[in-house]
Amino acid sequence: MADVIKEFKEIPYKIYLEENEMPTEWYNVRADMINKPAPLLNPGTGQPMTAEELGGVFCEELVKQELDNDTQRIPIPQEILDFYKMYRPSPLVRAYCLEEKLDTPAHIYYKFEGNNTSGSHKLNSAIAQAYYAKNQGLKGVTTETGAGQWGTALSMACSYLGLDCDVYMVKVSYEQKPFRREVMRTYGANVTPSPSMTTEIGKKILADHPGTTGSLGCAISEAVESAVSREGYRYVLGSVLNQVLLHQSIIGLETKTALDKYGIEADMIIGCAGGGSNLGGLISPFAGEKLRGEKDYQIIAVEPKSCPSLTRGKYAYDFCDTGMVCPLAKMYTLGSGFIPSPNHAGGLRYHGMSSVVSQLYDDGIIEARAVEQTEVFKAATEFARVEGILPAPESSHAIKVAIDEAMKCKETGEEKNIVFGLTGTGYFDMYAYQAFNDGKMTDYIPTDEELEASFATLPQIG
Amino acid sequence: MADVIKEFKEIPYKIYLEENEMPTEWYNVRADMINKPAPLLNPGTGQPMTAEELGGVFCEELVKQELDNDTQRIPIPQEILDFYKMYRPSPLVRAYCLEEKLDTPAHIYYKFEGNNTSGSHKLNSAIAQAYYAKNQGLKGVTTETGAGQWGTALSMACSYLGLDCDVYMVKVSYEQKPFRREVMRTYGANVTPSPSMTTEIGKKILADHPGTTGSLGCAISEAVESAVSREGYRYVLGSVLNQVLLHQSIIGLETKTALDKYGIEADMIIGCAGGGSNLGGLISPFAGEKLRGEKDYQIIAVEPKSCPSLTRGKYAYDFCDTGMVCPLAKMYTLGSGFIPSPNHAGGLRYHGMSSVVSQLYDDGIIEARAVEQTEVFKAATEFARVEGILPAPESSHAIKVAIDEAMKCKETGEEKNIVFGLTGTGYFDMYAYQAFNDGKMTDYIPTDEELEASFATLPQIG
Repeated sequence: MADVIKEFKEIPYKIYLEENEMPTEWYNVRADMINKPAPLLNPGTGQPMTAEELGGVFCEELVKQELDNDTQRIPIPQEILDFYKMYRPSPLVRAYCLEEKLDTPAHIYYKFEGNNTSGSHKLNSAIAQAYYAKNQGLKGVTTETGAGQWGTALSMACSYLGLDCDVYMVKVSYEQKPFRREVMRTYGANVTPSPSMTTEIGKKILADHPGTTGSLGCAISEAVESAVSREGYRYVLGSVLNQVLLHQSIIGLETKTALDKYGIEADMIIGCAGGGSNLGGLISPFAGEKLRGEKDYQIIAVEPKSCPSLTRGKYAYDFCDTGMVCPLAKMYTLGSGFIPSPNHAGGLRYHGMSSVVSQLYDDGIIEARAVEQTEVFKAATEFARVEGILPAPESSHAIKVAIDEAMKCKETGEEKNIVFGLTGTGYFDMYAYQAFNDGKMTDYIPTDEELEASFATLPQIG
Repeated sequence: MADVIKEFKEIPYKIYLEENEMPTEWYNVRADMINKPAPLLNPGTGQPMTAEELGGVFCEELVKQELDNDTQRIPIPQEILDFYKMYRPSPLVRAYCLEEKLDTPAHIYYKFEGNNTSGSHKLNSAIAQAYYAKNQGLKGVTTETGAGQWGTALSMACSYLGLDCDVYMVKVSYEQKPFRREVMRTYGANVTPSPSMTTEIGKKILADHPGTTGSLGCAISEAVESAVSREGYRYVLGSVLNQVLLHQSIIGLETKTALDKYGIEADMIIGCAGGGSNLGGLISPFAGEKLRGEKDYQIIAVEPKSCPSLTRGKYAYDFCDTGMVCPLAKMYTLGSGFIPSPNHAGGLRYHGMSSVVSQLYDDGIIEARAVEQTEVFKAATEFARVEGILPAPESSHAIKVAIDEAMKCKETGEEKNIVFGLTGTGYFDMYAYQAFNDGKMTDYIPTDEELEASFATLPQIG
């Protein structure tokens, strides 16, 4: 590879913004949406959740952000800016080596969010949520985590601010994937395997299913109960919510500033989509320009064929959690009863999709594509070997489509500027890589009958 | 923490050099040494190894670099510069949050080498060694690896250049620490658990010790045999050698350029020391100024009390490997028979020390300090919680002494500029963190009698 890169490139390998070029406001894409995302509903009454109702579970300022569909720019508090400086700006990397390998006329850029200990973009919202909790005078926050990416990010943020951090970790991950658990503990978090005897719902589940290894739905229920049943605690969530997408807009804003700095016009923005936190953040300012009629980008959400909420889901109100303790959200969903097949590796396993992303998709602002995991890992390996970075399985969904699009450019000769989000590193996903390396990875596409069965779990509200 | 950082700081959190500020030459500190490091000796004849003898094992150009005690600046080939651009420059970080936490007047800076998939500085030499092998028209290289840090770096470099990479991995690590093994395989390396049936020495060891789980000494022997017994292969090594320190000078050169850019005068340079690759690279340009009488820095090598080659070793000729197949090197050593106690976590377990670092230490250019691992992990945790980065156990030795020195400044009121090397991340060292988190980590200091016994393994040459 190396010998084909000969002349000095005007655009550097990595564009790092200077500290004084970094965004100081988040961008709220909802302000520019003609069709606003549908409000959260109280599952009991079927009515929109009020600030007061939400305030029992979430911090006050975060509730305001959750409900604010009008303010376009929201200042980032100085303390959060200071924290961002510890690991941001993240680089916008020109994938020169991948371009050479593919022999494509396309120019490929990726925004790399993995250069921090949490290993992903999750830290962008973790510090914001922890900050507002601290600012409200709370003692701590609770959350759930599966493999531990979000829990790690929250632990880091809470440790920095001196806030208690109680993480309910799905028991099977707690026992079989001890690494992220220990990272969280190193950052001072209390990590409890879920289900546990520390909550009423946990006790009940353990009584009903003594041998259970837990589920994300159960961990959410425990984390929410743990927050609302104690003075000075609130629950926080790492994806799906409007507030999370707001915080994650830092990704898109930095990307846009870096592109503008070098006069680069993106033709296409590609992001992987699970709950929508990374995708929503990355595309926000671009979608905003498109909504305002200023630019016309092609924006692509990439999801696994094994969990195809956008490409095969229904746009309907649904429970946000399998435990059905959270408010109802209108979203593209497979039904809260949907569980990806056991061979599904990595994240992007959420049954629904953020309301903002869902509405943008419904309005045709973004399109969606679903891909199979063996081709995703093939793309991941190809990328790693030339670009050096070992990508997370989630991020690799975006890599796969970026490569596909670059190969189309090779056919047509178009010099498109392709920008994709590389959300994180795969260091804690080596079991999945091992399966791929050993030729043992398989794919699974749910049948129509299976989806019909999970759609049957949709509530009859809204 | 966050609320104490109020005003805008003139020196940014992270100093990133621009691409055009990056070093284009390595610095060879041997050129400025009055007392040159002692030459490698042929263990059979006791005579200095010739270029021809070394050329059977190592690449030609690397042999030249190994023997060159005179050329001060060696141009970095363009292909290596291109690869460096993928993950370099590494940031020089001002540890504002750690300073606040310690309430010290000292200014603390760290050069962070962990932001690449190999997780450490090892990649700086891996790409150089792979490049020269490729340039010589070789098919591939062989090496040994313990936990896999060096093997990972070499796999990445070989994958980039399209070179075969055969890694002999100590069997116990191969089986019990599969993550780095899978990273190497993802980068296309052939990873063989050692001892193996692929070499004569491996077969012999397996015949003599059927249940052995391997050792680094045995893996070295297999890797060397595998290289010298095949056409088109050479052996490469990730530390100790003069050539490795030359390549690693990129760390020190970038550090120096970044400090100079902001007019910062370092008072103290601190690095952890195992074989000496990171320390030697970090301190090279500073040691050079000291050797030339231009500046007077305090330079501190930090080693584990459980493997104290500088602070308690002998300066003598010794075998570089426990298998005694490599040339003899004059170094501070505990004897090639020395094995750290089983409770020793992480790296920095080499029985000797690079000849360059040994000579600089013997000449009083650098000093050495030994620390216990429980206090190292305490410092690591303190650092992680305020600076965000989860450090490697090795790197944390430098953190420990940097904190100690910053606390001395607090007593004296001195505003010293303390610079230390943060060689890598600890993501693959979570078992050690777990032992610390659980309060189960212990220390061990070898007795004088134990050291006398391992000194008895020193050869009677030189």
